[in-house]
Amino acid sequence: MAYPGFGGGYGNFSGQIPGMQLGHLVPGTCPPLLVGGPPGYAAYSHGSDPMWTYFTAVAGQDGEVDAEELQTCLTQSGISGTYSPFSLETCRIMIAMLDRDYTGKMGFNEFKELWAALNAWKQHFMAIDEDRSGTVEHHELSQAIAVMGYRLSPQTLAAIVKRYSKNGRIFFDDYVACCVKLRALTDFFRRRDHLQQGFVNFMYEDFLQGTMMI
Amino acid sequence: MAYPGFGGGYGNFSGQIPGMQLGHLVPGTCPPLLVGGPPGYAAYSHGSDPMWTYFTAVAGQDGEVDAEELQTCLTQSGISGTYSPFSLETCRIMIAMLDRDYTGKMGFNEFKELWAALNAWKQHFMAIDEDRSGTVEHHELSQAIAVMGYRLSPQTLAAIVKRYSKNGRIFFDDYVACCVKLRALTDFFRRRDHLQQGFVNFMYEDFLQGTMMI
Repeated sequence: MAYPGFGGGYGNFSGQIPGMQLGHLVPGTCPPLLVGGPPGYAAYSHGSDPMWTYFTAVAGQDGEVDAEELQTCLTQSGISGTYSPFSLETCRIMIAMLDRDYTGKMGFNEFKELWAALNAWKQHFMAIDEDRSGTVEHHELSQAIAVMGYRLSPQTLAAIVKRYSKNGRIFFDDYVACCVKLRALTDFFRRRDHLQQGFVNFMYEDFLQGTMMI
Repeated sequence: MAYPGFGGGYGNFSGQIPGMQLGHLVPGTCPPLLVGGPPGYAAYSHGSDPMWTYFTAVAGQDGEVDAEELQTCLTQSGISGTYSPFSLETCRIMIAMLDRDYTGKMGFNEFKELWAALNAWKQHFMAIDEDRSGTVEHHELSQAIAVMGYRLSPQTLAAIVKRYSKNGRIFFDDYVACCVKLRALTDFFRRRDHLQQGFVNFMYEDFLQGTMMI
């Protein structure tokens, strides 16, 4: 796959940062084992899964979480650590990132996929935020985007970083929102780029349907 | 202009709701006259403009406002009335809606354009929110989108409305965020649809540059 003009990459879809282990659980946030769950989920298949507790606590009978439930779930899990909990807006785009049938909800498998990506992004943010100020600098987000495999012009990178900054710094919630949107929009684009040539002919409604959600 | 498959409309770009006057100032929020302003803006040309006070109070020497300054500006203006002030995220997409050179800032002319659109959207929201609960229902946002001239399928409309709702209702801030994004994304698409046929061939980076900002 080669994309003329922007150097070859759509970004690393796994959300993995080179040198970091995907899906690594943050020490101290591992919940106790809970057996059981909503209809449709066999307890034995998830009983040993540490994320199951958080998920089942909020998913309810339909076995899925919407954006508000996801916010509760992630806040209770402590995945943000010492950083501020995720905003509802960021949770909405997290749902959209994996919600290909536009139900506005997320099942447990998608939740695990999100969890893995969040941990990778958090570890990278913590590696940059050495003084634990809760924020990183513009050039550090630019570098992170490049490391994830996105090949973008300096102008595009600068515009993106500015969009996700606040008072000249990037907070953890905005950092994650930026990562989620980059991945979700790229995924949306790539699914339609059947020849993987780096361009897509969009109908207006399809374009709007995808981008309004993200 | 006709768009096969979705019935002819890209939406009303002026932000105007039929039967409502664009740019109408909310009674009681009109600021006192302030003469003077930042370099680059002749005082005489804006001295009689009621929005000038809010704008100059936060724009500083560069004569433009970024998202944080816009949030301060709109909050001080009281344009939200009894509804909650706009979130920073909504202010960011307001900037993006009119920021075609990706500076992340807004000049006074753009601010006036935004002000007019916000007033139209607010009046429409208040007309729907008869009991002043601060929220409207799903079908009311769907109807509002259709009234603005966007011709979208019921499936797309339902997905959009769900995305901007909270606990099954739509708050004023989310209502405006939805209107801003619809207009900004449609504007972004239409500027590239040179033949006005309803489809656009996007390069990946151009697609990402526009949609990541909005």
